[in-house]
Amino acid sequence: MSKVKVGIINVTGYAGVELARLLSQHPAVELTSVTGRSLAGKPLGEAFPHLAGLNLSIEAKLGEVELAFSAMPHQESAREVIPLLDRGIKVVDISADFRLKDAAAYLSWYGASHPRPELLAHAVYGLPELHRAEISSATLVANPGCYSTGAILALAPAVKAGLIGPEIIIDSKSGISGAGRSLSLKTHFPEANEDVTAYALGGHRHLPEIVQELTQLAPGQPPQVSFVPHLIPMTRGILTTAYAPLAPGRVSTDQKGQQALLKLYRDFYRDEPFVRVVEAPPHTKHAWGNNLCFIHPTIDIRTGRLIAISGIDNLVKGAAGQAIQNMNLMLGLEETSGLSAPAVYP
Amino acid sequence: MSKVKVGIINVTGYAGVELARLLSQHPAVELTSVTGRSLAGKPLGEAFPHLAGLNLSIEAKLGEVELAFSAMPHQESAREVIPLLDRGIKVVDISADFRLKDAAAYLSWYGASHPRPELLAHAVYGLPELHRAEISSATLVANPGCYSTGAILALAPAVKAGLIGPEIIIDSKSGISGAGRSLSLKTHFPEANEDVTAYALGGHRHLPEIVQELTQLAPGQPPQVSFVPHLIPMTRGILTTAYAPLAPGRVSTDQKGQQALLKLYRDFYRDEPFVRVVEAPPHTKHAWGNNLCFIHPTIDIRTGRLIAISGIDNLVKGAAGQAIQNMNLMLGLEETSGLSAPAVYP
Amino acid sequence: MSKVKVGIINVTGYAGVELARLLSQHPAVELTSVTGRSLAGKPLGEAFPHLAGLNLSIEAKLGEVELAFSAMPHQESAREVIPLLDRGIKVVDISADFRLKDAAAYLSWYGASHPRPELLAHAVYGLPELHRAEISSATLVANPGCYSTGAILALAPAVKAGLIGPEIIIDSKSGISGAGRSLSLKTHFPEANEDVTAYALGGHRHLPEIVQELTQLAPGQPPQVSFVPHLIPMTRGILTTAYAPLAPGRVSTDQKGQQALLKLYRDFYRDEPFVRVVEAPPHTKHAWGNNLCFIHPTIDIRTGRLIAISGIDNLVKGAAGQAIQNMNLMLGLEETSGLSAPAVYP
Amino acid sequence: MSKVKVGIINVTGYAGVELARLLSQHPAVELTSVTGRSLAGKPLGEAFPHLAGLNLSIEAKLGEVELAFSAMPHQESAREVIPLLDRGIKVVDISADFRLKDAAAYLSWYGASHPRPELLAHAVYGLPELHRAEISSATLVANPGCYSTGAILALAPAVKAGLIGPEIIIDSKSGISGAGRSLSLKTHFPEANEDVTAYALGGHRHLPEIVQELTQLAPGQPPQVSFVPHLIPMTRGILTTAYAPLAPGRVSTDQKGQQALLKLYRDFYRDEPFVRVVEAPPHTKHAWGNNLCFIHPTIDIRTGRLIAISGIDNLVKGAAGQAIQNMNLMLGLEETSGLSAPAVYP
Repeated sequence: MSKVKVGIINVTGYAGVELARLLSQHPAVELTSVTGRSLAGKPLGEAFPHLAGLNLSIEAKLGEVELAFSAMPHQESAREVIPLLDRGIKVVDISADFRLKDAAAYLSWYGASHPRPELLAHAVYGLPELHRAEISSATLVANPGCYSTGAILALAPAVKAGLIGPEIIIDSKSGISGAGRSLSLKTHFPEANEDVTAYALGGHRHLPEIVQELTQLAPGQPPQVSFVPHLIPMTRGILTTAYAPLAPGRVSTDQKGQQALLKLYRDFYRDEPFVRVVEAPPHTKHAWGNNLCFIHPTIDIRTGRLIAISGIDNLVKGAAGQAIQNMNLMLGLEETSGLSAPAVYP
Repeated sequence: MSKVKVGIINVTGYAGVELARLLSQHPAVELTSVTGRSLAGKPLGEAFPHLAGLNLSIEAKLGEVELAFSAMPHQESAREVIPLLDRGIKVVDISADFRLKDAAAYLSWYGASHPRPELLAHAVYGLPELHRAEISSATLVANPGCYSTGAILALAPAVKAGLIGPEIIIDSKSGISGAGRSLSLKTHFPEANEDVTAYALGGHRHLPEIVQELTQLAPGQPPQVSFVPHLIPMTRGILTTAYAPLAPGRVSTDQKGQQALLKLYRDFYRDEPFVRVVEAPPHTKHAWGNNLCFIHPTIDIRTGRLIAISGIDNLVKGAAGQAIQNMNLMLGLEETSGLSAPAVYP
Repeated sequence: MSKVKVGIINVTGYAGVELARLLSQHPAVELTSVTGRSLAGKPLGEAFPHLAGLNLSIEAKLGEVELAFSAMPHQESAREVIPLLDRGIKVVDISADFRLKDAAAYLSWYGASHPRPELLAHAVYGLPELHRAEISSATLVANPGCYSTGAILALAPAVKAGLIGPEIIIDSKSGISGAGRSLSLKTHFPEANEDVTAYALGGHRHLPEIVQELTQLAPGQPPQVSFVPHLIPMTRGILTTAYAPLAPGRVSTDQKGQQALLKLYRDFYRDEPFVRVVEAPPHTKHAWGNNLCFIHPTIDIRTGRLIAISGIDNLVKGAAGQAIQNMNLMLGLEETSGLSAPAVYP
Repeated sequence: MSKVKVGIINVTGYAGVELARLLSQHPAVELTSVTGRSLAGKPLGEAFPHLAGLNLSIEAKLGEVELAFSAMPHQESAREVIPLLDRGIKVVDISADFRLKDAAAYLSWYGASHPRPELLAHAVYGLPELHRAEISSATLVANPGCYSTGAILALAPAVKAGLIGPEIIIDSKSGISGAGRSLSLKTHFPEANEDVTAYALGGHRHLPEIVQELTQLAPGQPPQVSFVPHLIPMTRGILTTAYAPLAPGRVSTDQKGQQALLKLYRDFYRDEPFVRVVEAPPHTKHAWGNNLCFIHPTIDIRTGRLIAISGIDNLVKGAAGQAIQNMNLMLGLEETSGLSAPAVYP
C-alpha cells in the first residue's frame, strides 16, 4: 500500500521538528516536504541532526501533499493554510488561527481581524476526546493549544456531568519548550534555570479556547475560569491542577464520592487510547515524548472541591502528537498509528 | 561588645546548614555549638566544605548557648527543646511541634499526642509580619513552615481587609530542597529532573498552620482552603499562586481596583524589611539565598478574583532566614541583622 | 511469523526499564518475561507507568525465553546467567561479569574470583563495530560499559591505524542515570543539581575494558590510559573527550591532516548504522533516547594531538540499545531492528 | 572612615551584576556609579530586583570614582578604560584587553590591533596567587579569564616545581552563565538543558593566557597545552580537570608520591585565603557564590600522570570575586574584605 504524502509548513520550530520526529515512525504516511523560512535550502539533518534519517531538505514552498500540518505562528498560519484548503488539501493547523468559533473573540485575543471568518465554522477543534466524529470528516482541524489540551481533558468529565460549579481555577506548570525556539531573556538558560514564575496574568490566549470548549460541554452554565500558566525549569511537560467547587448533592465528599468520581472519569474516557485515569498524582515524566494524558481526579474532602490534575508532554499531546492523532482520524487510519512508542523514562 | 552565643540542634539537614551559613555572617551572634546525630564527632567543614570557615565540630550534645535553633524533625524536636526551655534557654523551633495552638489538631495532623500541650499557648508563631511584638518577648518561637510562609504572606492583607471570600485555593511550586536531605526515590535526580508532580492531596501538614493564621486575621469568616504543593526540578524556591473570590463591593474589578489592591498590600507591608510588593509576577530566583518575599497581588478582571503570587527561598524566608529574623527580634537585635546580603543571581 | 520470546532479568533498574521500552517497539521479538527482586508480583505498569502497555507482571523467576538480557549487578549477574547458558539460552549480559578476558583482571577490579572463568573466552565483547562477526555466532555477549562504548568508539579508528601514540587521556561527562536507580547522596537532586564533580580517580571499572579493547586493535603498543569520569546535572548522555599525541609522520597537523583524519574515521565507520562521524562537536541531546554514537575527530594543530569527541545516550548505545543491537545480531535479525526511532529533541 | 568610591562600567552583564552584588556587602568601598548601554536611565533595581537595595540608577557615563571595574566586552573595554587611566583612576578590567603581554598575540587571538600596546607592559595579570605584589602597586589590573583562573591554579604548583612535563591537557566544564547574558541558540534553555557539548576546538581565547602564565612559572619549558571547554547544564561553576605526565624521577608513583604531591600543593598555597587544597574531588557547588578555588591534585599511579582538578564559581573567583580581591590589593585593603560569605549550598 502506498503511503499518504504529508508535509509540514515551518518545520523549524519545536512543534515542527516534533512532528517530523513522530511522522518518521508512522507506518502509513510519508513526510515528503517540509518548509522553513530562514533555513530554506538546508538539509533538514544539518539543522536537526536527529532528523538526518529523513533525508529531506528544508524548502521555501510546500511540495505536493495530501495533508499539510502548519506550524506557523498565528496570523501567518491562516495566510499559508487558506490557499491549501482552496486547493482541497487537508490541513491540521497547529496555530491558533482556527480554534475560536467567534471571529470577534479572535480579533479581541489576537489583535487582528480574521482573514476568512467563514472558515471558523467549518474548522473542527482538534481534541479527539470531544470531537472525534467531526474530526474524522473534517478538512480543516484546529489543533488545540498545549495548555488547553491538559486543562480541558482534566475538567471535561466533571463539567459534562454537571458535577462542578462554574468557579474554575486552572493552574498550569509548563516546561520551557512551550515558549518556543525563538530566543528571549526568559528562556535564556541562566535566567530560566533554578526559577519559576507565573506569566500572562492579564489573560493567556489559551483561555478563550478552554472556555469555549467547557461551555459546549455544559451550555447552561458558562464557566468562570481563572487560568494562570507558569514556566518551570524543565524542557518538556505540562502539569495542570484544576480546582472547582462540587455542585451540591452530586457526589459525596468522602471516600465513596472519591470512588464515584474515579468511575465517572473512567467511564468518560473508557475507550480513549491516549487518556489514562490514574489513582495517584501523575508525573509529567511518564508522558515524556509520547501522546498520553494522565488524569488524576480527586475530591478535596475538607472543602468539597474537585481537584483534577493532568500531565502531558506539551510537544506531543499538547501539539505534534495530537496533530498526528487528528491526521489519523482525517485520513481514516488507525487513530494510534505512529503514536504507540512509550515515553522515554527516566 | 561580646557576641551572643547560639547553637543549632541537628545542623546536618538543609535547614540546619543554611542556619550555619547565615549565622556565620551575623555581626552580633556567634554560632558556638552544633549537633548532629550520625555525624557527631566530625568537623563541620568535612561534612559541609562551605562551612569549614566556622571551625566547628559536630557534637552529640548542645553546648552552653543563650538561644538554640532546633532543626530536628517534628516530635523529636519537642523532646530536645523542652529541657532547654526548662533551663531558660530561648528557642526557635524550625520543626512543626509548636506551630499549632490546638493540641487536638497536632494529634490529628502529626499522629501523636503533644508531649507538653501547655507550651502551645506560650509559643509564638514566628511570622514577624503578623506577630512581631509577641516574638520580641517570646522564649519559644515556632518557625513557620516554608509553604505556610509564602501562602500566608500572599493572602494576609486581603484577608485582614475582608477583601476576599473564604473560598481560597493555594497552589504552590517548590524546589526539591524542601523535601530535605534524606534520600527518597522522588528526590533521586533522574526521577526529579524533567518532571513535575503534585503531592499530599489528602492534606499537607502546612495546611492547618495556614488556616490557623488566616483565621486569626479574620476571625468571623473561617477560610475554606484547598492547598496543593508541587515539586519542580530546581533546588531552592517556592512560588505560591493563591486564588480567592473578591468580596462583593469591596474593590472594583478594573484597573482602578488593581491600583487600590496594590496600595492595600503596600500599606500592609509598608515597614516590612523583607517583603516587597511588586507590579510584575515575581521570579523565585530574585530571592535565591536571601530572606525576601516578593508579592504580586492582582485582580483577575474577567472573574472578579484575587490572584496573589508570592516568591521566596524555601530555605531562607521559608526556614533559616526567618528563624534568624525571629532570633534577632527575641534578642533585641536589629531585625535585619545578618540578613542583608542580596540574592545570588543568576 | 511468530516473534522470538525474550526476557529481562532485573527489569527494575534503569538499564532494565530502558530495555523494556525499546523491546516494546521491536517488530520481531516479544518481551514475555521480566524479573525483579523487590517488586516481584507487581504489574510492570504500576512501578513504571510508561510501560503499562506491555501488560507484564514482574516475576520472581524468568519464564521460558529464547534469549535473556541480564541487567543484574556484577557477580549476581553471573550467578543468574550461568544456569541459563547451561540450558542453551542465549544471553546478553549488561553487567561487567563477562567483559574482561582475563580472570585475574576480574578478580583485581571486582574483588571476587570469577565463578566460571572458562566462560570468559567464549563470551564476546558486545561492541558490534569491533566484533560483529563473533557476536553473530555468540551465545553469550558481554554488553560494554557505558563509558567504554563512547571511549572505544572515539579512539578505535585512530588506534587501529597507528595514528596516535599510547599516551591517551579520556575525560568523560555523564548524566546521572549512569549512577543507577539506587539512592545515594551524590544522586540526591539538591546535591547533584547545579554541580559537577569527578569521581573514581583511583580507577574506574570501565578502564580495563577500554584498555583491553584498544590493545586488541593495536597489539604492539599497549595504551597508557588515564580515564576520569565526571557526573553532570542531566539525566541521560555521555560526552567523552579523548586526547592522544599524533604518531610522528602519520598525518599532517593542518587542515589537510584534519581532512585525512575525517576520511579515516568515515572509512572506518562507513557501514556502521549507529555511528555518525560529524564535522562539529556533537551534542549528547542529538542522541537522546536513541542508539546513535556521534563522533567528531579533530587535530589540535598547535600541539599535534588528536582530540576525538563522542556523544551517546548512556542508557541506549551505552546499555539497552546496544544490548538489542547485539540481540539482533545473535538472532540473525536486521541489526537496526527496533532501534530506528530518532532521538527525542529538544 | 569614609568609604572608597568605586564604579562599574557595563553593569548589565553577569560579571557586572555579580560585582554589584558583592560590592554591596563590602565594608570599605561604596559602589556609587554603574553604567549600561541599553538600560541607561533605569533604576538598577528595576532591571535586577536583587540589587534594589543599592538604590542606584544605571547611567550612560561613569561618575567620579577612585577605582573602576570594566565589564565591557574586549576591544570596547580598552576604549573605555584608557581615558580613565589617563585621568589617574585605577582600573580592574574584566575583559581580555590587557591580559596578554604580547600585542601580536592580542592581534592574532582577538582580530584587532591593540589600541595602546605600551599599556600591556604596565598592566598586571590579576591572579593574586601568582602576582600579589605587582597587583598591590598596579593602576591597571587585567582580571583573568574564568577558565584561565581554574586551569592556572590547578597546575601552577606542579609547573613551578618542574614536576610535570610540558604535554598538558586541560578539560573544563562550565556552567552556562559563562557564555554571558546575550541570547544565543546554544544558551536557549530547551537546547542547553539535558545536553553537554565541547566548543572552541580551534582554540579558545583563554588558551594564550594560560600558556603565558604557565610559561612564566617555568620559563625553560614552554608548555604544550590542549584546552577544551565544555558547556554543561547548570548556571554557575567551572570544573577543570588537568592532565600532564610526571617528570621522571621527581615524585614516586605511589601513595608516598601522592602525599608528597599534596604537601607540595599545600605549601604552595599555604597562605592563600581563597585556595583550598583538598583530598577528595571537589564539587563546584562548594564554591557556589563565593571566591574559593578548591584544588585536588592526584597521581594516576597506572600511568605516571598528574591529574589536578579545580572547582570555582565562574562568576566569582572566575570574574567578579577575583576582581574585588584585586581591588582590595590595589587599594591596600584586607585582601578578603567583602569576600568572606560562604558558598550557598545546596
